[in-house]
Order: sequence, then C-alpha cells, then structure tokens
Amino acid sequence: MSKSPEEEHLRKAFGWAARDTSGVLSPFKFSRRATGDEDVTFKVLYCGVCHSDLHSVKDEWRFSSYPLLPGHEIVGIVTEVGTSVTKFKVGDKVGVGCMVGACHTCDNCKNDLENYCPKMIQTYNSTHYDGTKTYGGYSDIMVANERYIIRMPENLPLDAGAPLLCAGITVYSPLKYYGLCKPGMHLGVVGLGGLGHVAVKFAKAFGLKVTVISTSLSKKQEAIERLGADAFLISRDQAQMEAATATMDGIIDTVSAKHPLLPLFSLIKPHGKIICVGAPEQPPELPIFPLLMERKMIGGSIIGGMKETQEMIDFAGKHNITADIEVIPMDYINTAMERLVKADVKYRFVIDIGKTLTPA
Amino acid sequence: MSKSPEEEHLRKAFGWAARDTSGVLSPFKFSRRATGDEDVTFKVLYCGVCHSDLHSVKDEWRFSSYPLLPGHEIVGIVTEVGTSVTKFKVGDKVGVGCMVGACHTCDNCKNDLENYCPKMIQTYNSTHYDGTKTYGGYSDIMVANERYIIRMPENLPLDAGAPLLCAGITVYSPLKYYGLCKPGMHLGVVGLGGLGHVAVKFAKAFGLKVTVISTSLSKKQEAIERLGADAFLISRDQAQMEAATATMDGIIDTVSAKHPLLPLFSLIKPHGKIICVGAPEQPPELPIFPLLMERKMIGGSIIGGMKETQEMIDFAGKHNITADIEVIPMDYINTAMERLVKADVKYRFVIDIGKTLTPA
Repeated sequence: MSKSPEEEHLRKAFGWAARDTSGVLSPFKFSRRATGDEDVTFKVLYCGVCHSDLHSVKDEWRFSSYPLLPGHEIVGIVTEVGTSVTKFKVGDKVGVGCMVGACHTCDNCKNDLENYCPKMIQTYNSTHYDGTKTYGGYSDIMVANERYIIRMPENLPLDAGAPLLCAGITVYSPLKYYGLCKPGMHLGVVGLGGLGHVAVKFAKAFGLKVTVISTSLSKKQEAIERLGADAFLISRDQAQMEAATATMDGIIDTVSAKHPLLPLFSLIKPHGKIICVGAPEQPPELPIFPLLMERKMIGGSIIGGMKETQEMIDFAGKHNITADIEVIPMDYINTAMERLVKADVKYRFVIDIGKTLTPA
Repeated sequence: MSKSPEEEHLRKAFGWAARDTSGVLSPFKFSRRATGDEDVTFKVLYCGVCHSDLHSVKDEWRFSSYPLLPGHEIVGIVTEVGTSVTKFKVGDKVGVGCMVGACHTCDNCKNDLENYCPKMIQTYNSTHYDGTKTYGGYSDIMVANERYIIRMPENLPLDAGAPLLCAGITVYSPLKYYGLCKPGMHLGVVGLGGLGHVAVKFAKAFGLKVTVISTSLSKKQEAIERLGADAFLISRDQAQMEAATATMDGIIDTVSAKHPLLPLFSLIKPHGKIICVGAPEQPPELPIFPLLMERKMIGGSIIGGMKETQEMIDFAGKHNITADIEVIPMDYINTAMERLVKADVKYRFVIDIGKTLTPA
C-alpha cells in the first residue's frame, strides 16, 4: 500500500497543489524526506511561476499526475546540510531549478548535461529514486541532493533572481551552445515574455546587438528603454521585415504559439541559426531552401546542466541580470495563472513564499 | 540588339541544348569567349548528368532560360591558358563544377564560400560578367577563370571523377561543416542515388560507421558489398527503425521527394544533426520536440567553395573515391534523362563528350 503524501516521509511540509485538470491550486499538506548525507534542506523564500507550471496543473502535456505541486524556480536559505555536503552550509542563499536528479552514468550526465539524461528527475510531477513523488517550490521547504543545489550570488535579489533558474538557463544555454554569444553579433529575440525579456538581458551582457521581434507595437518602448534592446521589429509589418532581411546572425524564438518560420529565416544572414525554446503544439512547416541555399539551420534546447546553470547565475550576478517580476502572495496564485494565460504580466510572477505561505 | 549564341563570341562551340520546357536536348551551335588573361580553356572529355540538369531543362525550378545547355560536372584537358594564369598549363587534367564566377568582394567570397555569394554565376543558365549567357558542359570546349578551375588528381579516372565536382562536394562540404567527419562517428545516409552513394564513400574514407536508410530492400546488398556501408535500414520497417533509435550521430538526407522528418530525428542521438541536401518541392513538417528535448538540429548545404572543392577532389584522389557511373554517348542523353526520372541508373550517367560529341 502506498502511503499518503503526508505520511510518506517524516518531515512535514506544506504548499499549494492542483488536484485535477481544472488546475485550481489550493493548500496541500505533504511531507519531505529527512536530510540525507548529500542533501541540502532550505526554507523556501520565493518561487517563480513558469509557463510550464500552468501547462502542468492543467495537464496540457498529458503527463500530469495529481496532486501536482508545481514550481521550479525556487530560492531560499539553507537550514540543514547532510554530513557529506561540502559546498553549502546553513544560512547560504541557494536555489533549485527544474531538476533534482538524474542517472549520473550516461554520456549526458558525464558531460554535465543532466538536463538531457533520459532518467532526469524533474523538480515536480516526477518520481524520486526512492519511488516517491516530487513536489515543487510552491511550498515551505525544499530538500535536494547538493548536486542540484545552486548557489545564489550575494548581490542578486532572491525574488528577481529566482526566475533565472528556469527562464535564465533556458536562454543562456543555447546562446552559448550555438555560438550566438560573441560580442558584436546581432541577435533577434522573438517574443517578449518570461523567456524573451531575459534573453535580451543576457544577449546585451554578452555584448550583442539585440533586436526584439514582436507582433505588438505596444512593447517597443519597453523593449528598448527598459530592457536595453537596440531595435524593435513588428513581425506583421512587411516593410520593416524586408528592410531587416539578412541582418541577424541568429534568432532565439521563445514563442509557443504556432507561427511561420520562413520570415525568421529571411531575417538571418547566410549560415545563421534559429534556436527554438518554445514548443508549439502543432509542428510548423520547415522551409528547406534557406537551409540549402544559405546554409541556415534550426535547432533547439531545453534548460541546461547543473554546471552551466551555476555558470549562468554567476554570470547574472556579475552583470546584475535579474528577471522583471511582479511579486504576489501565495493566495493570489489562481488569479496569477489566469493572467498568465493572457500574458498579462511583466514578465514573471514570483510568489513570496516566505511571507505569505501560511498553514491553513 | 543582342547577338545570336553563335555570334556572341569569336570562338565557335558546339553542344546539346534544350530549346523549351519539353526538356528535349538536341545539337546546338554557340560560341565561347577567347581565352582571357586569367582564363583556362580546355577540351571537354566527360560531363556528368546531374539531377539538376533534368530539373533545369524542364524548367521545374521556374528560372530556366532557353536555349539551355546543361552540365556542371565537366572534365577535360587544358588546351590554352591566359597570360596571367599561374596554376595551370596546357595538357593538365582539369574540371569545372557548378560555378564560374562570383563577386569576390562579399563576406562569403572572402571566406572561400563563393557558392553562397548572392552574385554567384552558375556554370549554365546564368549570366557572365559581360552579360552573355553561360552554357554548361554538354559541349566540346569550356573556358573559365582559373579561380573556377579544379585540378583533377592524376590517379582518378576522369569519367568517374567528373560527378564529384557536384555530387562529391555536395556531400563532402556539409559533412565537414557540421562536424560529421570524425572517425568512429555513426552516419545515416538517406537515399542511395547520385548523392547518397558518394556520401557513403566519403563517410567511409573519413572513418565513419555508415548506415544506409532506404525504402528499397533491393539496394541492401549493393550498399554493403559494393559501396562499403556497414548497415542498411528499410525506412518502412518499423521494427528495424525502432531498433536503431538514437544510434546515429547524424544523418545526411539526400532525398528530394517530400518525406517525414520525425523518423529521422528518432534515429539520431541527443545533440545529433540532420543535414538536408535534397530539396523537396513542399516543405516538410518540423517536429519541434526533438529540437528541444534532445537538442537536435537540422541544417542544409549546397555544393561548396572552390578551395573546398579542390580539397574534396584531392581527398578523393588520396582515397581513390570515384562515383559509380554508366558512361553514355551524347546522343543517348534524352533516353538517359528519361531513365533518370525513374532513378534507373547506378548511380550517375556520364557523357563521353570526347568520343561521341560530333558536329551534326
């Protein structure tokens, strides 16, 4: 007989979870494992609200298991460390992103790419090595093996730094992997949401020229004045798009809604690259001629390994990169989810767990 | 008034050209320019019949201009060199591939990528610097700037070496560019025609494991015994395809007919690459999940620059790589074109211009 979430482990825990595909979140009592030899336990202070959380609570990807307690942009203060832990001590500012485990024997794991390990354990809606369920960061405490703990830079505010653990690494990793990080390069950023606005900031810190490509003129001033983009293109403005033909070294495409790829291929120079980090439900058409005649390519990426995630957050600390956030109390989460559906947030909700998550 | 093809230049020339979209080729009198200071003139001995020739004579790509004299796998013996020519002398074995000119000032040209120069001049169906039309290798003589002349290795037979000037560089260049040329790697080759059979040979010479992926079991024995492939996969055999999941570092896809990409993405390992060198008329669907979840990518390529084409043919000389050919007389060309439509050739027709092209 499997035990109830509250009885599985010795340590009591509390959070907000969805119970069914309505996606409505409500207070939830569960439990977390005691601090193992290699574990770090921390009091959660903030947790970002990622678009994945929304998809997951509503089971839009068809692999949700309820109760589902989301959140994988989790930061807080260490309260306990296992006897073998060497990198962290009580009082440290730390975080956990999208993963809490992997096989550690496959080629991906050996190459610090745990994010591509077929046995990667996600921070929530996944299964621990011990067979128990993983619960995310919309909760009071977190426990994870130190390999999956990120040290937060001292100078980064924890609330605005939290979203970097997912949104930040999601854009940082492919910009590095596909070589779109060399000073003087020109990058297009498609979509100005949680991922896009962070992509602009990292690209500027890399020394790139950045053009935001969006359907919405309303975002122009903000993209340029607030986020530091160099230029702004309305994707529906044919003249603007034509004038920008073959001017970019690459594009990072953060949009999940299905959209045509040909106009984006036209914007990049020969040998340029398009990186997808959004996942449309329907596959787009792949125009072959730009691939042949101009040796263009299209690839993708998903989050990043633990080593690179630490590198990303250290880089963010050095360059004072944070997400633009709206801090919300825990009991606002269902309203926040509704607003997220409408993209009505600039640009990331972050739950103030420390001050507002109180046992019912 | 523009002059007739016969009167444009002083030097008389003769070949076979198509006059309209029927694509039927027939004897054709025209003219070639006198040997300029930087030019090399050679007597054509052999010319390969590329699939592009077929598309062009029938105007299937909608930019053919008649009369159209095809052929861009041209080899022969130098008969005259211009006063500034330093690399070639009378009697040398030489060739011309797909290009005879470019701007020589753009970034592509400066980086030895004349093949991607927007002003690249194709060997036929294009316009010379002087405004006259370019005519291809189904003809008795050829003149080109020495920059576009390839030195054929002494040990390569000219007839079987000719197709490398297009088919060879078309597969060699992307295998190098996309890094699918390191000993021990596993390459899938989709389609076993003019391009595919040469891809198998180059990949084996690079030290790769090669699996041919084809719809047709009839090609298995040949792929393995004659071409040296290590394995053969029937793309319609679900069990075979599943057993080969995630085994390949990359795939070179030479098929022009529209076909689904998802099964090919399944064959490659995480971080693997698909290279398209065939051009389907309709764009295929791009499955996004393999791009995200396994960081796979898809790119393409078209022929190669002159420096790399020389490198390719020198490599072919060193490893005794030639195309498998069927040598035909000039007046067989219309039948050959019909057979090409049905892929009824192993694997490349080569016209014996030297012995069989005789003035009508």
